[in-house]
Amino acid sequence: MSGREFFTALTVAEALAGFRPARRTRVESVAREELLHRVPAADVLAPHALPGFARSTVDGYAVRAADTFGASDGLPAYLELAGTVRMGRAAEVAVPAHGAVAIPTGAMIPHGADAVVMVEYTAETMPGTIEVTRPVAPGGGVVGADDDVPVRGVLVPAGRPLRAPDLGLLASAGVSAVPVHARPRVAILSTGDEVVPPDTQELTAGQVRDATASALAGLIRDAGGDPVYAGIVPDDADALIEALRQALAEADLVVISAGSSVGARDETATAVAELGKIWCHGLAIKPGKPTMLAECDEIPLIGLPGNPLSALVVFRLVGVPLVWRLAGCDQPPPQPRTRARLTRNVASQAGRLDVIQVRLDQGPDTGLGAEPLHGPSALLSVLARADGCVLVPEPATGLDGGTEVDVMLYA
Amino acid sequence: MSGREFFTALTVAEALAGFRPARRTRVESVAREELLHRVPAADVLAPHALPGFARSTVDGYAVRAADTFGASDGLPAYLELAGTVRMGRAAEVAVPAHGAVAIPTGAMIPHGADAVVMVEYTAETMPGTIEVTRPVAPGGGVVGADDDVPVRGVLVPAGRPLRAPDLGLLASAGVSAVPVHARPRVAILSTGDEVVPPDTQELTAGQVRDATASALAGLIRDAGGDPVYAGIVPDDADALIEALRQALAEADLVVISAGSSVGARDETATAVAELGKIWCHGLAIKPGKPTMLAECDEIPLIGLPGNPLSALVVFRLVGVPLVWRLAGCDQPPPQPRTRARLTRNVASQAGRLDVIQVRLDQGPDTGLGAEPLHGPSALLSVLARADGCVLVPEPATGLDGGTEVDVMLYA
Repeated sequence: MSGREFFTALTVAEALAGFRPARRTRVESVAREELLHRVPAADVLAPHALPGFARSTVDGYAVRAADTFGASDGLPAYLELAGTVRMGRAAEVAVPAHGAVAIPTGAMIPHGADAVVMVEYTAETMPGTIEVTRPVAPGGGVVGADDDVPVRGVLVPAGRPLRAPDLGLLASAGVSAVPVHARPRVAILSTGDEVVPPDTQELTAGQVRDATASALAGLIRDAGGDPVYAGIVPDDADALIEALRQALAEADLVVISAGSSVGARDETATAVAELGKIWCHGLAIKPGKPTMLAECDEIPLIGLPGNPLSALVVFRLVGVPLVWRLAGCDQPPPQPRTRARLTRNVASQAGRLDVIQVRLDQGPDTGLGAEPLHGPSALLSVLARADGCVLVPEPATGLDGGTEVDVMLYA
Repeated sequence: MSGREFFTALTVAEALAGFRPARRTRVESVAREELLHRVPAADVLAPHALPGFARSTVDGYAVRAADTFGASDGLPAYLELAGTVRMGRAAEVAVPAHGAVAIPTGAMIPHGADAVVMVEYTAETMPGTIEVTRPVAPGGGVVGADDDVPVRGVLVPAGRPLRAPDLGLLASAGVSAVPVHARPRVAILSTGDEVVPPDTQELTAGQVRDATASALAGLIRDAGGDPVYAGIVPDDADALIEALRQALAEADLVVISAGSSVGARDETATAVAELGKIWCHGLAIKPGKPTMLAECDEIPLIGLPGNPLSALVVFRLVGVPLVWRLAGCDQPPPQPRTRARLTRNVASQAGRLDVIQVRLDQGPDTGLGAEPLHGPSALLSVLARADGCVLVPEPATGLDGGTEVDVMLYA
């Protein structure tokens, strides 16, 4: 990260590329059953090969492949039944030349065999004699002892959030715990003389409940973080500095949902500048322009716009990748998207990213439509009603109705 | 659901459309901070209008719009400054004719005013006199008292999992808890003489640790369910019936990861038929054909193929929608997808859905490529390495390399 301070509006792409705090959360050992979506701090290696022994992939007879060469319906191979392999046991019998051992799917290949012929191509024509009507190649019907993962092979890689199949792979290798990055603690500090806690039953005139903090907590959880409410601070420089100091002491990332007025925003910037370095103040995005990115003693800090919708739009684009990064993950899970046609024109201004909330509607024969939702950006209900958003890139001056667009879906 | 029993292979679409158990989980009240992705059992209505009072959306002056009509740089309107509105307080002063009251963004519109003119179009040319150089329309710069949500309006709808902005909307209305469907309890029953618990340190020859149960638990959690390990049952009819009976008694859905051999699968079917009605046995899908759908005393049951990869492929397509449905949700959150080009041909058989695991690769100038991952379907590592899968629909007999396909991404 550059040490310079920028006070001009950056594009969102510039901010994402440039604001890359070095901080990572500490590493902790987490039990397998709690590992879903956690980020391994190092590659986890297989303590032994998987599956660990050669297994049959079909129900049939373990054989020497060479004994089946040329077998056909007209000229079957005849093999002597030498025994049966039981599931979950060592094969007690070896396969001799011109012999066959009955074997179910998943059982251990007996010594001497190098293939399994499927039961569909066999018949026990006489007791103890197996007729084989198709040849099987060496290795056919067999998974090798290390075909799934070799010993010391990578079971799950560092830096990618664990998914359901990874948990299965860890289980099959007997790995009961994995070192992962701790969930980033994200302190949420709300400001504003008008803002009161959400559980306030009776409001006095001019008061509003804190909506942004609860919504941010949801986005933080979705990004694998641990939201921590750091309280609501009145528009007072000293109170703000003190609250910030406390939040910084116990968080990996601090998010301030700043006051909505210009005066309140200036006060926030002054307080942050007191404690750290402002890296950029202003993003070329609508809604969300009055966004601040800063670093205070290596703790990154995001100052969000005062209105809830703007704050959430910015946090989704800028904050969510940062939460993942703090946990050692540079490739967050994929964002759901869909293609749809705009149902009407949207205006946008060249030079900034316009984020348009849309509702999806399946037309009778026009395909999936994306209807832009209007209304003042102050309205949280617009975001709750939206199925997703369309990003109108910086160079564009609007999009025509009918244009096929990429919709970022809210999950 | 039809009372008939089918033993022919259904398509996945037929199974999803036809196997629709009526069961829903009980309703419980959950605190707002724990509501993310939970499914409301009924629409939640706003106890009062939101924002609850008319607010300014800009920093500026509250005015009577008519007093600004015709104002321009050449011919400004001059208004008398009558006071200031403070954030979070009732406006103490009304706006008289030809008057203006200073107001920050988010503050309460004072009586008498019907618009707010932005500070950018004003100047305090003399103390107490505000010069306005642009007209503002009635309602300009104002959010009405019920513009966000009217009283008794729907804050969040029944049946859709709650997202982060919904939590904000609930907070702004002071709703501290919501009745939601309980997380579906999904019992996972593993079978097979070869299967041992994942924390078994030393394996004897022929044994494998239970990989499927841990991976299924991850998919169940992702679908908002609560996985319950119901143990590992040997391939024994009586033991299986007894274990099934116990699992059915305490679950909303039972998933059996059945034995992999034909014999073990037959045994599972026999046990299930003893306790309920088999709705279909066999899906036209690869991997995953030996899938069973059943209902036992109104508890749905899925019998999965024995091999872990097949089991997970089927559970993702058939089980995940079922878990959501049990929680009262018919529209699961969107599945991440992307378009990519197949890097080589894939074979498939007409009449069945082929599920191809792929790894994505960003080519230098060929765009995003989807590389089919080969290997026996027994290998869980294939699924862990995959970024997603491609569904080759039933009528197709394969897809050519270079074809643009829709990749279901694993998140």
